[in-house]
Amino acid sequence: MLTHNVYFEGQVQSIGFERNGRSATVGVIAPGEFRFGTGGAERMTITSGALHVRLEGGDAWQFYAGGTSFEVPGKSAFFVRAEAPCAYLCEFL
Amino acid sequence: MLTHNVYFEGQVQSIGFERNGRSATVGVIAPGEFRFGTGGAERMTITSGALHVRLEGGDAWQFYAGGTSFEVPGKSAFFVRAEAPCAYLCEFL
Repeated sequence: MLTHNVYFEGQVQSIGFERNGRSATVGVIAPGEFRFGTGGAERMTITSGALHVRLEGGDAWQFYAGGTSFEVPGKSAFFVRAEAPCAYLCEFL
Repeated sequence: MLTHNVYFEGQVQSIGFERNGRSATVGVIAPGEFRFGTGGAERMTITSGALHVRLEGGDAWQFYAGGTSFEVPGKSAFFVRAEAPCAYLCEFL
């Protein structure tokens, strides 16, 4: 029922679950910069730490503090940069 | 740097990290009732879903909705009951 997802040789890891027919993950991003592609649209909420985010094709890095969220369109990609481990909730919309 | 922790045959799983010299995990509790012992004191924050919690030795179950937190003393134990998958942040105090 729960899944363990490993990306970038373990530098990003998450636990996947489903509730009310919707998929979500909670995970941690180690310090570094990583690129994620999306299938469907996603909402990312920072639950601990902070994250810099840039949508692919965009110039601007945005800063998201703990407690804030951002949404990413489906069939797109985004870059994240963490200066310290950052925990998140990712909801597939 | 990140760790994957598995409890209760995979029904509770978490990703562990450290920031500012403090340990924390983000994880998911599958539906069911589980008992956790503590080493040091912990703060649990519900990041998605909801959780019923009872401290060992206490009679009362308390309900914690998403966005709320509770703290558990060190060298103690608590029971959690999830009716649907519940995501949490656990900070070791």
